[in-house]
Amino acid sequence: MAKPKSGKPQQLKARLPRGLADRSAGEIAATRHMVEAIRVVFERYGFEPVETPAIEYTDALGKFLPDQDRPNEGVFSFQDDDEQWLSLRYDLTAPLARYVAENYQNLALPYRSYRYGWVFRNEKPGPGRFRQFMQFDADTVGAAGMAADAEMCMLAADTMEALGIKRGDYVVKVNNRKVLDGMMDAIGLGGDDKAETRLRVLRAVDKYDRLGGLAVEQLLADGRTDESGDRTPGANLSRDQIGYVMSIFAPPGLNEKMSSNLETWEIEDSRFTHPGFEPDQNKIPITNKGTISAARNVFPHNAIYQVGLDELEQIAEFVHSAKYGSRRICVEPSVVRGLEYYTGPVYEVELTFEIDDDKGRPIRFGSVGGGGRYDGLVSRFMGQPVPATGFSIGVSRLQAALTALGKVSDKPPYGPVVVTVFDKDHIADYQRMVSRLRAAGIHAEMYLGSGKFGPQMKYADKRNSPCVIIQGSNERDRHEVQIKDLILGATLTTIKDRDEYLKRQAEAQITVHEDRLVEVVRSLLERHNLGQV
Amino acid sequence: MAKPKSGKPQQLKARLPRGLADRSAGEIAATRHMVEAIRVVFERYGFEPVETPAIEYTDALGKFLPDQDRPNEGVFSFQDDDEQWLSLRYDLTAPLARYVAENYQNLALPYRSYRYGWVFRNEKPGPGRFRQFMQFDADTVGAAGMAADAEMCMLAADTMEALGIKRGDYVVKVNNRKVLDGMMDAIGLGGDDKAETRLRVLRAVDKYDRLGGLAVEQLLADGRTDESGDRTPGANLSRDQIGYVMSIFAPPGLNEKMSSNLETWEIEDSRFTHPGFEPDQNKIPITNKGTISAARNVFPHNAIYQVGLDELEQIAEFVHSAKYGSRRICVEPSVVRGLEYYTGPVYEVELTFEIDDDKGRPIRFGSVGGGGRYDGLVSRFMGQPVPATGFSIGVSRLQAALTALGKVSDKPPYGPVVVTVFDKDHIADYQRMVSRLRAAGIHAEMYLGSGKFGPQMKYADKRNSPCVIIQGSNERDRHEVQIKDLILGATLTTIKDRDEYLKRQAEAQITVHEDRLVEVVRSLLERHNLGQV
Repeated sequence: MAKPKSGKPQQLKARLPRGLADRSAGEIAATRHMVEAIRVVFERYGFEPVETPAIEYTDALGKFLPDQDRPNEGVFSFQDDDEQWLSLRYDLTAPLARYVAENYQNLALPYRSYRYGWVFRNEKPGPGRFRQFMQFDADTVGAAGMAADAEMCMLAADTMEALGIKRGDYVVKVNNRKVLDGMMDAIGLGGDDKAETRLRVLRAVDKYDRLGGLAVEQLLADGRTDESGDRTPGANLSRDQIGYVMSIFAPPGLNEKMSSNLETWEIEDSRFTHPGFEPDQNKIPITNKGTISAARNVFPHNAIYQVGLDELEQIAEFVHSAKYGSRRICVEPSVVRGLEYYTGPVYEVELTFEIDDDKGRPIRFGSVGGGGRYDGLVSRFMGQPVPATGFSIGVSRLQAALTALGKVSDKPPYGPVVVTVFDKDHIADYQRMVSRLRAAGIHAEMYLGSGKFGPQMKYADKRNSPCVIIQGSNERDRHEVQIKDLILGATLTTIKDRDEYLKRQAEAQITVHEDRLVEVVRSLLERHNLGQV
Repeated sequence: MAKPKSGKPQQLKARLPRGLADRSAGEIAATRHMVEAIRVVFERYGFEPVETPAIEYTDALGKFLPDQDRPNEGVFSFQDDDEQWLSLRYDLTAPLARYVAENYQNLALPYRSYRYGWVFRNEKPGPGRFRQFMQFDADTVGAAGMAADAEMCMLAADTMEALGIKRGDYVVKVNNRKVLDGMMDAIGLGGDDKAETRLRVLRAVDKYDRLGGLAVEQLLADGRTDESGDRTPGANLSRDQIGYVMSIFAPPGLNEKMSSNLETWEIEDSRFTHPGFEPDQNKIPITNKGTISAARNVFPHNAIYQVGLDELEQIAEFVHSAKYGSRRICVEPSVVRGLEYYTGPVYEVELTFEIDDDKGRPIRFGSVGGGGRYDGLVSRFMGQPVPATGFSIGVSRLQAALTALGKVSDKPPYGPVVVTVFDKDHIADYQRMVSRLRAAGIHAEMYLGSGKFGPQMKYADKRNSPCVIIQGSNERDRHEVQIKDLILGATLTTIKDRDEYLKRQAEAQITVHEDRLVEVVRSLLERHNLGQV
């Protein structure tokens, strides 16, 4: 019944939980354009849409999130009325694995699909870190070969360019978990009993971009306390082991120094390439082949390490033959990806340009997407191995970057034509004008508030309306309407010449016969390039 | 690391919780087209987009859902790490009220906004009842007058027609909670102590379409046990009271019989109109004005009842002057709407046509959207009254209806051109063909599986591909490719004439020089009206 309860109504505070945000008209329009651009590229690659719901059984999603130290391991969970645990999806990959397993017999294999939607993480919110954000994924399930992974990298590159990011302003970095696993094996971190240690190493390495080298070294050693006082336990590696792991970030020129520290290991060139490194064309060019062959000699006798490099080599060949150079798709040993389920190639798209923030400080956006091969995720449900690989764009994060870059706008588009109400007794007449404008495809509305003329004009301004329609009793008697061009009107203050001012003022407010309302408004919109139809 | 754990891996069952569903390519495309069509209409009405997240503080959403007998009163809830309760939104109205209250000072008032998105209900799932579904809402906050409500009804009507539902196949029904409240007051259900009873009456009435008259009578009396054995308590009304409430559903002709049962009350015409009733033009036409004036005399001395009719009269006048007749927007006393927060006008869009289901039984879709005035919802957060009214389309439900009607397709669109792989050593060549097709905007992919020619053709069939590209070693030596037109090929079986068959077969499989690949595929797509670019 919604009748007020007796007594003074309790006043609630209108607020959102931390890490969640409302979205304005401008942001929504920008997301729509981005999603549309991404969709076009993904469909051109032959992926077809399939979507899963936001809620899944908790056990179907599994626990693969990097922030295991958070409550519920980073996942929002709740019990169903039959006591089974449900969770909000934390990415689009785990639900896809469930979908594929459930529909395996009916799918065209290899199964190529895409989807976008909101995902939810019960993480500690922070600047740019939200608990609800949008991802746009493509996945190929049932293709074991590296051609599928190479294609993901090319898809990532093409998508960036479709979004207006020019070549050189992004790079798709590729690595392989097997290379990392092999390295860890070679430095004494192999074996089932060291699984937890290896996971901590990978998670530490994955935080390099966000936290920097010192924090990663702390996480590889005995742990780290962040600004808020929260402590993350370390991987407890030895100094030599840490040196080896850190060598994947080493900039060129440090090789000699590092190898002197690490002479017990058989390193020759611990640096393959590094983030943002621009090869000097006059010196040795850093090619993907060069990077891989340098890496070959680091652990020549570790089988898993060498298999990882074989796979990287195949990917490098595919992208090379499709004419994607190493400036676009680049083998990069420091790429890890935080999620636990990756088993082979991992990729990451990084924006490489810097822009200045409000205060003139340079900021870099870093990773806006990534993915990899997750051969174990579908087979959790099946009695058989099912290879799979996928790529995910962080739409929300990319949108922030594109907005800063001026590639997408966060400004609201122009508002509707506002028909002002002068005489409450003639609302039906004003309503009819609105109906005529709408029937012509023009965004229009009658002012529905109780304000007089001043507030109505202020309303139209706030709505960013191109023009308002006015009909007082004088105009009505003559079957006329006044049309006030607010866009032209806004330019009047800049005019110094009196004659010019009067001329423009006259143009900005014209009176026409009622019958010409639609025609005149339409030409006004066309003059301002507002094709609303 | 995702290495398999030692021992036999535990096998999970791939399944979705009840009441949740995956969505296919065809369904997703249909939703996209619907959402786009609705958006165009809503923007033409001057509404601007604003979106809120899926998660809100539980107290901010309030408890207004009809199914209070369900756990958590129909809402999915969970605790944040600071122990505060969070919930998934169960509609788009309650979060909008929170948004408006939080941003009130910065909004252009009256604030006209729209949004669409998934909402979640922890309800008992059933046929056509999902726990996640999509709504598309428009709301006007800060407009107290009935012009805002009338506009919502016109918006609803225009939206139905924009979606291809022809005039006469839908009706927007309008009622007013005040009329219902006044009726209940007049039959002895007024006062604070009867609030719970009134709520049960409204919820019972709201179930008429779904459960039918007998069930509603049971719910008005001592309660009802459904097929599953669940019992809903009744409103415990007397026989006379039940008669009065049920009279709002009474078909024409029953008036005399009813009024003889109910002679203690001052009813003259208990039937205003009824669902699906087509007025006989030779008899008294059922106009909105006629409906309202007949109702005037039922409870002439109940003030709230009469105010409700005043408001209905104003709405009827607005829509009449905007040339929306009572066939499109119709005053209808049996409309209630299940949500508790409505305070004045309530509206419901109903599809009036019947279609046959798979088994030839006629089905009717009923309500596909609705809304109303919720003047109390924003003011829960504010120290001042804030009038508001809104309309919500049940996109998921409407899509089911439009699919059945053939207005939207649930068929997947054509798939990509498939470049088959004959020779694994020349994958790079096949990849290059794909790249060329994609660069021309054509949806294309290389077969990424391990199957031989047969499985590759089967794959292309399953993907609904328009054509496949084949290059064996003979073709490669001659720099040629074979293009197999699968759409034309599929028609061959229907041809009986041998010459015609051979001619068409030749057309369906042509061999061209590699350089002409893109050009020939493009003209093939154009011939089949598949403008994929």
